[in-house]
Amino acid sequence: MSGFKVRTDLALEARENVEEGAEELRGVTVEETYDEESEVKVTRVVIESKNSAKLLGKPIGTYITLEAPAMAQPDEEYHKEISDELAKQLKNIIPGTEDEISVMVVGLGNRDVTADALGPNVVDNLTITRHMVKEFGKAAYGKNRIHMISGLIPGVMAKTGMESAEIIKGVVEKTRPDVVVVVDALAARSTKRLNRTIQVTNTGIHPGSGVGNHRNSITKESLGVPVIAIGVPTVVDAATIVNDAMEKALKNLPVETAKLQEELHGGMGELYNMYVTGKDVDYEIKQISHIICDALNRALEL
Amino acid sequence: MSGFKVRTDLALEARENVEEGAEELRGVTVEETYDEESEVKVTRVVIESKNSAKLLGKPIGTYITLEAPAMAQPDEEYHKEISDELAKQLKNIIPGTEDEISVMVVGLGNRDVTADALGPNVVDNLTITRHMVKEFGKAAYGKNRIHMISGLIPGVMAKTGMESAEIIKGVVEKTRPDVVVVVDALAARSTKRLNRTIQVTNTGIHPGSGVGNHRNSITKESLGVPVIAIGVPTVVDAATIVNDAMEKALKNLPVETAKLQEELHGGMGELYNMYVTGKDVDYEIKQISHIICDALNRALEL
Amino acid sequence: MSGFKVRTDLALEARENVEEGAEELRGVTVEETYDEESEVKVTRVVIESKNSAKLLGKPIGTYITLEAPAMAQPDEEYHKEISDELAKQLKNIIPGTEDEISVMVVGLGNRDVTADALGPNVVDNLTITRHMVKEFGKAAYGKNRIHMISGLIPGVMAKTGMESAEIIKGVVEKTRPDVVVVVDALAARSTKRLNRTIQVTNTGIHPGSGVGNHRNSITKESLGVPVIAIGVPTVVDAATIVNDAMEKALKNLPVETAKLQEELHGGMGELYNMYVTGKDVDYEIKQISHIICDALNRALEL
Amino acid sequence: MSGFKVRTDLALEARENVEEGAEELRGVTVEETYDEESEVKVTRVVIESKNSAKLLGKPIGTYITLEAPAMAQPDEEYHKEISDELAKQLKNIIPGTEDEISVMVVGLGNRDVTADALGPNVVDNLTITRHMVKEFGKAAYGKNRIHMISGLIPGVMAKTGMESAEIIKGVVEKTRPDVVVVVDALAARSTKRLNRTIQVTNTGIHPGSGVGNHRNSITKESLGVPVIAIGVPTVVDAATIVNDAMEKALKNLPVETAKLQEELHGGMGELYNMYVTGKDVDYEIKQISHIICDALNRALEL
Repeated sequence: MSGFKVRTDLALEARENVEEGAEELRGVTVEETYDEESEVKVTRVVIESKNSAKLLGKPIGTYITLEAPAMAQPDEEYHKEISDELAKQLKNIIPGTEDEISVMVVGLGNRDVTADALGPNVVDNLTITRHMVKEFGKAAYGKNRIHMISGLIPGVMAKTGMESAEIIKGVVEKTRPDVVVVVDALAARSTKRLNRTIQVTNTGIHPGSGVGNHRNSITKESLGVPVIAIGVPTVVDAATIVNDAMEKALKNLPVETAKLQEELHGGMGELYNMYVTGKDVDYEIKQISHIICDALNRALEL
Repeated sequence: MSGFKVRTDLALEARENVEEGAEELRGVTVEETYDEESEVKVTRVVIESKNSAKLLGKPIGTYITLEAPAMAQPDEEYHKEISDELAKQLKNIIPGTEDEISVMVVGLGNRDVTADALGPNVVDNLTITRHMVKEFGKAAYGKNRIHMISGLIPGVMAKTGMESAEIIKGVVEKTRPDVVVVVDALAARSTKRLNRTIQVTNTGIHPGSGVGNHRNSITKESLGVPVIAIGVPTVVDAATIVNDAMEKALKNLPVETAKLQEELHGGMGELYNMYVTGKDVDYEIKQISHIICDALNRALEL
Repeated sequence: MSGFKVRTDLALEARENVEEGAEELRGVTVEETYDEESEVKVTRVVIESKNSAKLLGKPIGTYITLEAPAMAQPDEEYHKEISDELAKQLKNIIPGTEDEISVMVVGLGNRDVTADALGPNVVDNLTITRHMVKEFGKAAYGKNRIHMISGLIPGVMAKTGMESAEIIKGVVEKTRPDVVVVVDALAARSTKRLNRTIQVTNTGIHPGSGVGNHRNSITKESLGVPVIAIGVPTVVDAATIVNDAMEKALKNLPVETAKLQEELHGGMGELYNMYVTGKDVDYEIKQISHIICDALNRALEL
Repeated sequence: MSGFKVRTDLALEARENVEEGAEELRGVTVEETYDEESEVKVTRVVIESKNSAKLLGKPIGTYITLEAPAMAQPDEEYHKEISDELAKQLKNIIPGTEDEISVMVVGLGNRDVTADALGPNVVDNLTITRHMVKEFGKAAYGKNRIHMISGLIPGVMAKTGMESAEIIKGVVEKTRPDVVVVVDALAARSTKRLNRTIQVTNTGIHPGSGVGNHRNSITKESLGVPVIAIGVPTVVDAATIVNDAMEKALKNLPVETAKLQEELHGGMGELYNMYVTGKDVDYEIKQISHIICDALNRALEL
């Protein structure tokens, strides 16, 4: 149903949102693999045509989603399996990793809001090499080949007065990395994907996405270098939660949907600046930050 | 309407929940004062009878609520007015402040979850005197009379493996304060009170209250000394949000409420471990922590 | 005495280091004012000639130092007096504050090392206006005239792989502020000035200064806009401490200084990456951050 | 030499301090093992007699020291080797680990001072089980046998107004663990051991030890249950640094030591509240916390 606009940062969910009849959407290819042992499901959605991009509300590009039910649970060996898979996917989608490149990893979000601190957490714990290589050469690491890794935590607009995109662009122009990797907390469509899903895409970050609602693009077009985005849904918009619950409840009741939507819409104004998150959000964000940090460290090793 | 059980930690809201016919609830007195200049509204609810306590789902005792629309806004002088009023109320309700007493201030909650960090923030910034007075006497402060203030941040059960009540009780028995003041983040009934309301009560903390859902009492009965609780609603349960939005929307629609509630109830299971919070939660918690800390410091000066 | 090279970031101390005979150093003017009530001493050192700049090891420019014995003590009213004085000095030395300007405040240093977190702390708590003015105009603040304030916390090289100067330069070129104000923790010459002194200068930041030893300049020459630096000595190099103690001890003993210095020098290699700090460093840094933040907020009000 | 009293929390160093002639100290047995591959050196000092305890200034008991030059370096596999060895030693020295026991792990120190945050960091990341076992039984973990682990971060006296020992004692009496494990940052005798050494002892914590200078004992005598202490030297007292450098420098110079000591002593008053720490202290503390946390988790698995 729904004429109600629901926001999701996940291509997976965008596709689910599209009406049922359209299941074989043209210009979109979907591949799924599932590892029974690790219970990790990898979905690869490629949006190939302008038309399908418009339909899904997502730009042309590749979207890889890792889903694992116990992603945020305290099991180090299991985390290792997920981060192995993620490292493999990252090595693949980050252009140039077989040669020596320089990569700037950017942690978006607000480090003082637990659900939004994913990006800063990842960058805080990443292995950074650029300054050592520049000063002492590869010898500093006893290696012949090494990527130059730098890290940036731009902060959020309410605290900097600047768009993250402005800050990143300035630093990219000054330090000239070959690739930018952006890590961000996302808004999901439903609570069932919270802290259980990692999305990797080569389309960068677009206006209105992320917990903090970035307004400017962080993309190849805007920065001049490829931008890989790693995102984890950590919150659901409060308005979405209400809408979802309502839809479920009304399925079997004799209410005219359009009217209800209208009424709802009127009463939910105050919810548009609110979000829903789980009660263990601190623990779960810590676990997933660790998985992503680990995967990035290994994907960026030569 | 509502047969649906909605949770609130505010006496103010508990009273509002009670059906309209019951407006003049026996055994409950309510006084309101409103300062036009500062826009601070003080409501004093006294629950006097067992019957009214049962009806409201709150224990017998005094509940003082300060409401101020701009409480979390960045205006230092305005904060001063609120903290002046709060200091006055605290001085009044904390027994013995005219003599020299020892007071333990306890900051409940999880310092790693922004909306739950209110208590730890307040205690982190409080003026602590007990150790100095014990070691050097009042001379350390150049005063004849001084309260001995101590502070405790017990942490949450998921991280300590212990009930906060166990920890507090142990420390109270060892250090024997005359009064315990507990500061905690609360769950409210509606988003409109979030971070705009401070409740002070002499009934302590009861099972199921607070963001972290404490299961054991922290009261005069359990600790052996008077317990004053300061609480600020910083979150709303996700289930409450859904219920509220629904009620509003359905007022004018021909649905049988009971049936809807039933359906809703079924679909909301997953929401019971989730909460809703505003996007500026970090900033707002910082402001209100500052107000409470300031008020406590002044209320506990001789 | 001393042929031993001692590092200080304070012009005040640089001047004290110069041999006694040179007391009336040409090309340097010094003015002192002392407020008996507040016990705040303000020293204004102006280095006017290349020659004196070379002699003092500090660039040509103005250096204002506020010293107050109880700066880091818990007395809010006293802090107000210091921040009043600091605000006045800042309003004076930041060019253009009588008109509307845009100011970027940069917090240098490592937020994870207590003694080095001063800069990040100040920017974290500053009133930021640029984004609001850009989006909603001055009306957002109900004012006719307002400065546009932005804030940047670049992080330290070990964690970013980039010089702070590179990051700042990139962001300055993109967002074009009229003035940059840099806040940093400094190394002092002696423990007696730790957390009791604030230095303001219009010469910016030079290589080798600050706790983190920045290697690139952050100056008008490098950024293209005036750079005001606010610094507080929060550490002393371990090597300096040793040298000082030794000098004091040997004054009355029959040792040849040169030989001792030589021996010392040999044995102190390991001390050059170490620093000395007080045991209440967390509390003191919090107090002084608050004073500087408050002064900046007021100096940048129109 | 030295008549000067130098403070160390390491039994290893206490032994080195004792004059050379006394090398075969009666009532003290020392065993060393060194693993060439991992470069981990384990020293086991057992102080058996009152006499030797007095001579070394350490109580009767067992002191195990792990030294590894690259302990704080970024090498995860190497960390694994150290934490394996530490887990083995802990399993051995914590009484009762072959049966089911309840263990309270206490993180001493100030989480806001980087060098003193070791204890809080370890407890923050530990696997806590007590509350789950108490509520859901061992089934919660799918195991037949499990230890009940709880964690406590008491905070420092300047912020709580209470001795850590008072808080711990109160909580121990209320929750009755079988063993207490205390983790603390220590003061070392020389910079060369900083963040490269872990000491485990069954003698608990004694007055004057630790960075924060605890004044009350945390021992089997005071708590009524065995106390195992895990300590890492993270700072050196500033006075010690000066003394050491001086001694080295003066070895070949014709100064009378006693006189020098006297002079030094006079001039160093201000240094007694100061400490020396390395510039990468944040990174190193994070690494070592991780090693200890990992070792404790494994030592306390059944």
